[in-house]
Amino acid sequence: MKNQGLTQVYTGDGKGKTTAALGLALRALGWNKKVCMIQFIKGDKKIGEIKISKNYLPHFSIHQFSKDTRFILKANKSDQLLAQKTLKHAEKVINSKKFDIVILDEINIAMSLKLITINSVLEIIKSKPKKLELILTGRNAPQKIIDAANLVTEMKMIKHPYYKNIPARKGIDF
Amino acid sequence: MKNQGLTQVYTGDGKGKTTAALGLALRALGWNKKVCMIQFIKGDKKIGEIKISKNYLPHFSIHQFSKDTRFILKANKSDQLLAQKTLKHAEKVINSKKFDIVILDEINIAMSLKLITINSVLEIIKSKPKKLELILTGRNAPQKIIDAANLVTEMKMIKHPYYKNIPARKGIDF
Repeated sequence: MKNQGLTQVYTGDGKGKTTAALGLALRALGWNKKVCMIQFIKGDKKIGEIKISKNYLPHFSIHQFSKDTRFILKANKSDQLLAQKTLKHAEKVINSKKFDIVILDEINIAMSLKLITINSVLEIIKSKPKKLELILTGRNAPQKIIDAANLVTEMKMIKHPYYKNIPARKGIDF
Repeated sequence: MKNQGLTQVYTGDGKGKTTAALGLALRALGWNKKVCMIQFIKGDKKIGEIKISKNYLPHFSIHQFSKDTRFILKANKSDQLLAQKTLKHAEKVINSKKFDIVILDEINIAMSLKLITINSVLEIIKSKPKKLELILTGRNAPQKIIDAANLVTEMKMIKHPYYKNIPARKGIDF
């Protein structure tokens, strides 16, 4: 298994999934690795991770295709087309071998909302370049994805201030 | 609660606690915030987060005092003195008001090993500058700390490759 990239999954209802993937990126960039994050179900460009990557971190790319639909509960055709376009792009990025780490952010939600199929993601995990570290984030990771991954952490909410009427805060939550 | 900094705790046995704190730092740096991470129980300077902060991120400081004692099970007097020195330094950094976010990395372990007292950390939480966001990481967070925090996530290990004889990997795990 030496020099072999793993597949990691960060799921659960607690805060810290995308955030952990960003921390992993930060750490890897310190060792001069190249990192790409592809965001599903997110289309907001005014977020800290995009600002810092553009201004300070030339080896960290963040790609978005969707409009900001993080809170959709039921998918429509246009959400589906956007998610599938994002997945196609992800496959291209992964197979380009230009990156050491690829993060598919919120892809678990895209699967659970049936915007993309679980099988198409299993195929990506199975056929990814050996050295590539692949990170999948988002709540509701399907069991088949958990089975296929090497490392899985569930972020479990013990306390969350949103439920006490504190909205998401610039510089902290996005 | 607007403009009020919260106290966040990342605990549990899964991967992603320090990593989530690093991601939080990255995001905040994107909004030009100033971040300081003070590491307890860690003394290894050859880690990705230190390299990237030194080379690319002038507003991100990481401070260490301890030798690398992450795997100590029972504390001795010298571990205790180092942890208490780290805590004193943390208090100074917090009260300097030079930072928007202060991360006390692995402080939960320091408490659970009785290197520092729970009460001394409760005091820090209670008397911190109002706008400061305070992040505490490490497994075994004491219940009193969880009670005092605003946001708590437990990182729960579902699968972890270390148990399959894969050692920690440069650029990914440190």
